[in-house]
Amino acid sequence: MTDILEETSGRSGARRSRQRGKKAARASARQIDYHNLSNPFPPINIVSDDQAAAIHDTALRALEELGMKVLLPEARDLFRKAGARLEGDMVFLGRELVEEAIRTAPKSYTMRAGVPEKDLTFELGRLIFLMGAGCPHATDLVRGRRPGLLRDYEELVRIADHYDVIQTHGPFVEPQDVPINVRHYALTRPQLVTSNKVPFMFSRGTPQSEDIFEMIRIARGLSREEFEAEPRTHTIVNTNSPRQLDIPMAQGLIDMARAGQMTIITPFTLMGAMAPVSVAGAATLSHAEAMAAITLTQVAKPGAPILYGTFTSNVDMKSGAPAFGTPENVKASLLVGQLARKLGLPWRCAAGSAANVSDVQAAHETEMSAWGSVLAGATMVVHAAGWLEGGLSISYEKVVTDMEMCQTFAELCAKTIADDAEIGFEALKEVQPGGHFFAAQHTMERYETVFYEPMVADWSNFGSWTENGSIDASTRATKIWQDIVAQEPKCYLAEDRLEELDAFIAKRKEAGGAAPVS
Amino acid sequence: MTDILEETSGRSGARRSRQRGKKAARASARQIDYHNLSNPFPPINIVSDDQAAAIHDTALRALEELGMKVLLPEARDLFRKAGARLEGDMVFLGRELVEEAIRTAPKSYTMRAGVPEKDLTFELGRLIFLMGAGCPHATDLVRGRRPGLLRDYEELVRIADHYDVIQTHGPFVEPQDVPINVRHYALTRPQLVTSNKVPFMFSRGTPQSEDIFEMIRIARGLSREEFEAEPRTHTIVNTNSPRQLDIPMAQGLIDMARAGQMTIITPFTLMGAMAPVSVAGAATLSHAEAMAAITLTQVAKPGAPILYGTFTSNVDMKSGAPAFGTPENVKASLLVGQLARKLGLPWRCAAGSAANVSDVQAAHETEMSAWGSVLAGATMVVHAAGWLEGGLSISYEKVVTDMEMCQTFAELCAKTIADDAEIGFEALKEVQPGGHFFAAQHTMERYETVFYEPMVADWSNFGSWTENGSIDASTRATKIWQDIVAQEPKCYLAEDRLEELDAFIAKRKEAGGAAPVS
Repeated sequence: MTDILEETSGRSGARRSRQRGKKAARASARQIDYHNLSNPFPPINIVSDDQAAAIHDTALRALEELGMKVLLPEARDLFRKAGARLEGDMVFLGRELVEEAIRTAPKSYTMRAGVPEKDLTFELGRLIFLMGAGCPHATDLVRGRRPGLLRDYEELVRIADHYDVIQTHGPFVEPQDVPINVRHYALTRPQLVTSNKVPFMFSRGTPQSEDIFEMIRIARGLSREEFEAEPRTHTIVNTNSPRQLDIPMAQGLIDMARAGQMTIITPFTLMGAMAPVSVAGAATLSHAEAMAAITLTQVAKPGAPILYGTFTSNVDMKSGAPAFGTPENVKASLLVGQLARKLGLPWRCAAGSAANVSDVQAAHETEMSAWGSVLAGATMVVHAAGWLEGGLSISYEKVVTDMEMCQTFAELCAKTIADDAEIGFEALKEVQPGGHFFAAQHTMERYETVFYEPMVADWSNFGSWTENGSIDASTRATKIWQDIVAQEPKCYLAEDRLEELDAFIAKRKEAGGAAPVS
Repeated sequence: MTDILEETSGRSGARRSRQRGKKAARASARQIDYHNLSNPFPPINIVSDDQAAAIHDTALRALEELGMKVLLPEARDLFRKAGARLEGDMVFLGRELVEEAIRTAPKSYTMRAGVPEKDLTFELGRLIFLMGAGCPHATDLVRGRRPGLLRDYEELVRIADHYDVIQTHGPFVEPQDVPINVRHYALTRPQLVTSNKVPFMFSRGTPQSEDIFEMIRIARGLSREEFEAEPRTHTIVNTNSPRQLDIPMAQGLIDMARAGQMTIITPFTLMGAMAPVSVAGAATLSHAEAMAAITLTQVAKPGAPILYGTFTSNVDMKSGAPAFGTPENVKASLLVGQLARKLGLPWRCAAGSAANVSDVQAAHETEMSAWGSVLAGATMVVHAAGWLEGGLSISYEKVVTDMEMCQTFAELCAKTIADDAEIGFEALKEVQPGGHFFAAQHTMERYETVFYEPMVADWSNFGSWTENGSIDASTRATKIWQDIVAQEPKCYLAEDRLEELDAFIAKRKEAGGAAPVS
């Protein structure tokens, strides 16, 4: 970041650069806390209270009358013991059962990170960004598009660690060069060693989950009891819309709940494909499935931390291809946000793009869906940086250009001060008509810290920009991620814990690791 | 548009294309009124009521104690007669005078277009988009960046006419190949002949303004009296911030007001340059200058239609270069919106980018500033499509890609229906767990019209996209504007009026036209 800013300054022949040169060489005095963000926008209700109530009621009716297909016997058993009616693998949930689960699901909880400053509170009103996640491919302008590699994953963890506005980790890319029985070690270790933010985990069966819990306990120096007392990692569980919960997903919900860890519950309800073609219909299905999955966590362990989630967008009705950043996607986010507020639960929404390359379509779709999520009051915005092809690839350059967007949102969270000093009547008095404020006292007191300093933007004039090679934003972003990756990786773990962690991994690998359950 | 959509359909190997092929060939049944938009978002107050009151009060105090420099003697005279205090060319406006002007300025008015369907109502709550305007250069991927030509201007008028979401015209590009004494004919004629939307005019001195009024009267078949009874054209007047109003700008305000035509009043208050470095300070100056200019229109003719405006963003404090789509830009829009609501006046905000090329920086900046304008409740969003380099160029491909954004906003204005039919319990019942909704009755009844059909987006998978040449959004947008421009220009004028218009222009040209006043 420093490099880029100095370069910009050098290029632009700054009008006041001589005067300010010495000060600019110092670290910026601007200090905005990008880790703890409160959403500055008022909640937006996109339908009437009555309509929201009708959607909620229809979702409850669907769970009661139509039921959910639950493929894991243990999950069906938990539902049955809690009072649900079973018919084969169909589970019918009465509304009292669901309402009790919503009651016990925590409305506010804090996840513990490697250091207290990186702890993360989840509740309505907070704003947390996650980079693009779950991608089988990685792509960048230098190395092209390829199946995800461990190298890519490790680099992306370091990039996520670099940016304060990315407050927690996710499964950015699938490291396909690592065998699946040991992949969970490869996914977890970099998050614990090269970062101290809250780590993400896949819940791909109990044996893998237990391995990951153990790794976190070692890294954090915790007993099993201490570990289970507070959430320290999260997973994502998608329902198999419509109205189905498969074996690994149900197992993940149960395992995480019992260990006191957090699950992001995300029905994947594409309007016209896995969900009704209307915004209201898809939101109803998403709401029903989320409540069913939440109920499973709460019957497994009342009070288990969850994030109510949605991933509701539309498909191209000509091809069935998923679309993001569409008007229907934004409306669905707003509607589900209204339903989440009804429940009082922190919740997860998503930004993202279906474009094949990080072009202006991709930027438009990501910005639209991100604004939809932010205005909907989402606690966590997943896929907020770098997510292309509807999740089939993560783009390094887009990670950086979208980070400018995330940081802009973070800046908007900072209060706008309008006291007498900021209004500045004296400044207005000081500068004569037709003059300028460059040298005004009011300016000199503030100019070093008053504005957000962009990472990627080049505001030089066309002549300078052309002389400097007509470098576009994606190419500039490439230099930025390359600089981050070129740095010596940080190690956040004490030597003894690192040794213990690596010894555990070595031992488990020797024992054959743990295959995912599917 | 049809071409593009059919191409997309053909490319994507649509799952249901055979079944839907025949229907797709018909015109889309989807009908959304993009011309009459109501902002769907609630007003956002970015500072407290007390703070907004303090800003308003400080602005009034600045006009009273610090005054405005007014270079046009006629304007000073009007101010003086209305009760302002004069010292040389400084005008000091008492708050009663300003408050009376705010009172007489209309809170709602309708501008008349060539046909009633294109009439345009201005009031708080409406949402009107204008393409990028005032640019000396035009640029596109085919012909490169060049000084604006009449050909460019005429093409852009036709592109603006093509899109319903662009409800009125602006001075998209300066046709530098037309001599300045006859340029106003060249700017006005295409708007009256190849479009029937409300035309824009420059107010570059009374002789030019009178010529343009006459052209509009001829095109619309109106007497002078009929013309002056309702607004039929608008101009933009920038104050020379800080606190100065130059001769042509003041003359424009007076001429337009007396002719009953609309002026968009836009202080150009860049924080740290022509305005205080803080959001609150710049908004205070913008507010003061807008109120001073509004006062001049109202003392010239009480009730004259105006649009309260702002153009408040920050500069790069290293180079002095203007920036757009920054957090400070968004905050300033929100703050000025709050002030506009205090006055009850319809108002103008802006989107735009300082990027040199239509890349992802440009998309990010335009989307951020557009969202800022929309959430601020702007009646009109200027520069909403194609505006690059802080206004030094308009990009054809960006006009089209930004149009996707404008149309997305327009779609968001449409009410989200959440009645029983849309919620679709029967659809949920019809589709079994793990099934899909592609063939559901609920889907079949709606799929043709339920979703916005994008112009530019390509949602095909990476393989298909690569096979089809890896064409990015800007290149696809190029084909779209080329198709529009390749069409035979429409002529909206009856033959007799066209003849009369051209005879008038010929006569005036023979007489030497009218030089701009500066």
